[in-house]
Amino acid sequence: MNAAVPPSGPSPSIAGKRRAGLRERLSARSLDALLLTSLPNIRYMTGFTGSNALAVITRRGGLFVSDSRYRLQSAAEVKGLKRVIGSAGLLEDAAAARALARCRNAGFEADSLTYAQYRSLKKLFPRVAFRPVTGLVEDMALVKDRDEIAAIAGAARVADSVFRDVLKAIRAGATELDIAAEITWLTRRRGGDADAFDVIVASGPNGALPHARPGARKIRTGDFVIMDFGAVVQGYCSDLTRTVCVGAAPRAMRKAYDAVLEAHAAALRAAHGDMPARALDAAARGVLRRRGFGRYFTHSLGHGLGLRVHERPRVSPASGETLRTGSVITIEPGVYIPGKGGVRIEDDVLLEGGGCRLLTASPRQLILL
Amino acid sequence: MNAAVPPSGPSPSIAGKRRAGLRERLSARSLDALLLTSLPNIRYMTGFTGSNALAVITRRGGLFVSDSRYRLQSAAEVKGLKRVIGSAGLLEDAAAARALARCRNAGFEADSLTYAQYRSLKKLFPRVAFRPVTGLVEDMALVKDRDEIAAIAGAARVADSVFRDVLKAIRAGATELDIAAEITWLTRRRGGDADAFDVIVASGPNGALPHARPGARKIRTGDFVIMDFGAVVQGYCSDLTRTVCVGAAPRAMRKAYDAVLEAHAAALRAAHGDMPARALDAAARGVLRRRGFGRYFTHSLGHGLGLRVHERPRVSPASGETLRTGSVITIEPGVYIPGKGGVRIEDDVLLEGGGCRLLTASPRQLILL
Repeated sequence: MNAAVPPSGPSPSIAGKRRAGLRERLSARSLDALLLTSLPNIRYMTGFTGSNALAVITRRGGLFVSDSRYRLQSAAEVKGLKRVIGSAGLLEDAAAARALARCRNAGFEADSLTYAQYRSLKKLFPRVAFRPVTGLVEDMALVKDRDEIAAIAGAARVADSVFRDVLKAIRAGATELDIAAEITWLTRRRGGDADAFDVIVASGPNGALPHARPGARKIRTGDFVIMDFGAVVQGYCSDLTRTVCVGAAPRAMRKAYDAVLEAHAAALRAAHGDMPARALDAAARGVLRRRGFGRYFTHSLGHGLGLRVHERPRVSPASGETLRTGSVITIEPGVYIPGKGGVRIEDDVLLEGGGCRLLTASPRQLILL
Repeated sequence: MNAAVPPSGPSPSIAGKRRAGLRERLSARSLDALLLTSLPNIRYMTGFTGSNALAVITRRGGLFVSDSRYRLQSAAEVKGLKRVIGSAGLLEDAAAARALARCRNAGFEADSLTYAQYRSLKKLFPRVAFRPVTGLVEDMALVKDRDEIAAIAGAARVADSVFRDVLKAIRAGATELDIAAEITWLTRRRGGDADAFDVIVASGPNGALPHARPGARKIRTGDFVIMDFGAVVQGYCSDLTRTVCVGAAPRAMRKAYDAVLEAHAAALRAAHGDMPARALDAAARGVLRRRGFGRYFTHSLGHGLGLRVHERPRVSPASGETLRTGSVITIEPGVYIPGKGGVRIEDDVLLEGGGCRLLTASPRQLILL
């Protein structure tokens, strides 16, 4: 395995164990096979880290299909599955390799397979009865193992280190794009393989857009600056937000900051495994409501974190999920005041039996620059 | 429109004209409406640049749906369509807004809509007959208008400027990740909104993997180093590859370089609108074959470039497409010798009636550092 193929997938034995777990679930659903088309799920079950593949996991074996660009890489990453490198298209190549021979009932990923692929599937495998499957692999991935937690914790440390160092670049006159470029550069320098998502830097009134993109706006004295970014380490994501102030803080924004900080602390105190996700959301939302900022908290409290930067569980008022011990989630209350600005404080936590463990460790007190 | 919402979508009048063109095509297919779920196509038809939306274009009007994160941004970007900001889910919100009232036949994007969404669609709109549609918007987007060409040319200039400046960072001892971080940082600094895709830096034997990711490998004297990267400007992508050599070039790799350069030149001479895509591929492939490198050119010659970094037309031996005047494509012959290394030279060209116009302008002669 050379440097271009970092050992960033699960080790073969871990992927093998996951496939064994998946086979038990297939058996319980009377499925002979599952066709995997979602790339994060393929990575979880095979170790493959490229951008074009499918996998078929059968009761006893399975098949991995990719194209010629990934011949060497997939040989290094995917163990214990028959490998096919083709050029006719993934489904066509799988059919040519008799991927579902002796399978009568096969599941497919209903949230990933497109309608056009579904039609091809029916045509290419006329003897197989296909059943849509939702959330099967995602459900297994909810509870992280030790290696996964270590990877997310590593990605969180990168984000913390980036935050500490980017503070030097934040001053009146710097543009949002300057700071975003610095964050991306630092993320690579501190050991991140990539940004986990497009960096958000939103200053002054732009902070009122929760998903603002960094622009040419120059930071002014008195601005609150929201930075939301994360690193990828061994495929796993971190997600960190801090809001700092350049110069003296305007009183209204200072009040918003204190309310968000208190909501964040309330959520940290409340969080543990085996609780309703919406109860955790309510712990933070209640604080903001009591402080008069309820209507300015316009998104969910958090989301699961793993191979995807947004995954289950969803931590929102409408969530019907129960949080699991071993899940990693974000806690990110925010306040967005149109025309004025915004505040968001976000950390990544591992849910444990009696509480939660912070994976990000950047200071949460308001930093005045 | 503030700095956080850059004017990066098509201007309302352009999006409006595109929708008028789409309506003619709907009419020709006896469709009352088209449901758009592909984000690049939504951007093309509405101007919206965010990450969660759907659009319905009807014969006379249409509807745009997103969520509360994009309330302000979509108001700034989307003109001439009814806007709905909901929270129940895009399809559910569209149904609640009676998106397909008075529509009997509606198309949907078969390559984008998932099976699960298709099931929801049938349930939410029981009176509508749905028909899968493939490539309708993509076909309109094949020929670029003046603003689109200007945006791609701008993205190409950013890539050229990044290449010129990153050369200073390439030396024995630098890691692939160092150089990748530098490329990403320079891309932002030179005016790119983002990388068009994950930067590839592959040195020495890693160059034999066409889609290698940058790793911790340190560059050594005598290495060929492939750099493949691009910028996004106003949503449009550039895609540039250059291969340089650190120290003296090993003879075998030098021969490979010369062959790739000659293949690239042959393709540049051959390229024009209104020719079979596979004839262009053959122009380059023939050179490599005659030079004895045919079996080491393992991918297609090129691909279309636009809002997507990979889009139609596909320029490959198997392509059945005819190249159109006004399309922008990449020309990227390469040679990959397992265990030794690789060479790829890639430029972006606009196809014209009698030839092609280079949008990227970096030197193609072998640079020895």
